[in-house]
Amino acid sequence: MAKAKQNGRTENGAVKEDSSTRERIFHMAAELFTRNGYDATGVQELGDAVGLGRGALYHHIGSKENLLYQISIRHVYQMVEVGEEILASDQPADEKFRELGRRLMAMIAENLPEITVFFHEHRSLSKQHNEELIDIRDQFENVWVRILEQGVEEGIFRPMPPVAIKGILGLFNYSYVWFVPNGKETPEHVADIFADMALSGMKSR
Amino acid sequence: MAKAKQNGRTENGAVKEDSSTRERIFHMAAELFTRNGYDATGVQELGDAVGLGRGALYHHIGSKENLLYQISIRHVYQMVEVGEEILASDQPADEKFRELGRRLMAMIAENLPEITVFFHEHRSLSKQHNEELIDIRDQFENVWVRILEQGVEEGIFRPMPPVAIKGILGLFNYSYVWFVPNGKETPEHVADIFADMALSGMKSR
Repeated sequence: MAKAKQNGRTENGAVKEDSSTRERIFHMAAELFTRNGYDATGVQELGDAVGLGRGALYHHIGSKENLLYQISIRHVYQMVEVGEEILASDQPADEKFRELGRRLMAMIAENLPEITVFFHEHRSLSKQHNEELIDIRDQFENVWVRILEQGVEEGIFRPMPPVAIKGILGLFNYSYVWFVPNGKETPEHVADIFADMALSGMKSR
Repeated sequence: MAKAKQNGRTENGAVKEDSSTRERIFHMAAELFTRNGYDATGVQELGDAVGLGRGALYHHIGSKENLLYQISIRHVYQMVEVGEEILASDQPADEKFRELGRRLMAMIAENLPEITVFFHEHRSLSKQHNEELIDIRDQFENVWVRILEQGVEEGIFRPMPPVAIKGILGLFNYSYVWFVPNGKETPEHVADIFADMALSGMKSR
């Protein structure tokens, strides 16, 4: 539901303003959590950084833990949606693989603080939020599994051991550690190089 | 220097006991930092967990930041040593690649808390320690670069864009996120699957 609001399906200016304020809070919180850690970042500090008092800030975030949850989960949700769209298209499996890699790399490159928070701070989530995060993460992993299955059916890919999926995820996801935004490599170019490596490694013989 | 002591080059029982106590502290600290975060882990809490008073604990660790540094750097140092040995052997590049992958996966699987601390807590290092960490990490990356160069010279590998190294590191390193110790897959088996994928992807045509 938070998602629908973020997408701009708003009916009036007030809600729209709420939505853009929330975006600003989310982004600043991701920056602060990445730079100083979730534990060491106070709600007061975040409020100062976005120019909001305690009451207004809590109106937007609910709680600090909920803020962490929203930051952690939204891009994974978004990638599941992207993945489902790609799966529903009528491309062959290697094209789907390539496109999902490009979209994933672009998403990571554009949201480095958020993705860092996703990887580093999940221990601070409530049990329920953590389970929801694992569930949605598994859904995304499953998109890759289905693309590989399609490729095997089409005779493009050789059958791979299940753990190969973790290697593919690592190839792309690990970029949160090293990617330099606005450096010499675009995310799409890097994704193509990685997809080339992976695809030739998975080709049926 | 800390390394030489850990390796057991000790001359008497007292130093040896010091060394095993230090190992115990390092391991417990890595567990606590991973479970609760570096910021949220107090020296008092660590002392209680290993059954040492404040004075004895500081004798072993120097400072909390130094402890973080030692935990973060020692396995990377170790992997650089392993990498130099492999490089110095007279195997062809694909065998070196395979062996380094196996050794790296085994090291990660055996030291998951330490590797998690390495990836998640570097922002808490002093500037100097952080620079040293980056330097040794780059040395390890350079071992992979040299194996790839050897493979191109031998005509086994096609020339790859430099960013391909990041993909290879991601393939193996990302296992700190998902590897389940004592699960159904041994680290060596996983490493072989990943090396197969990467090697067929890098083969010269």
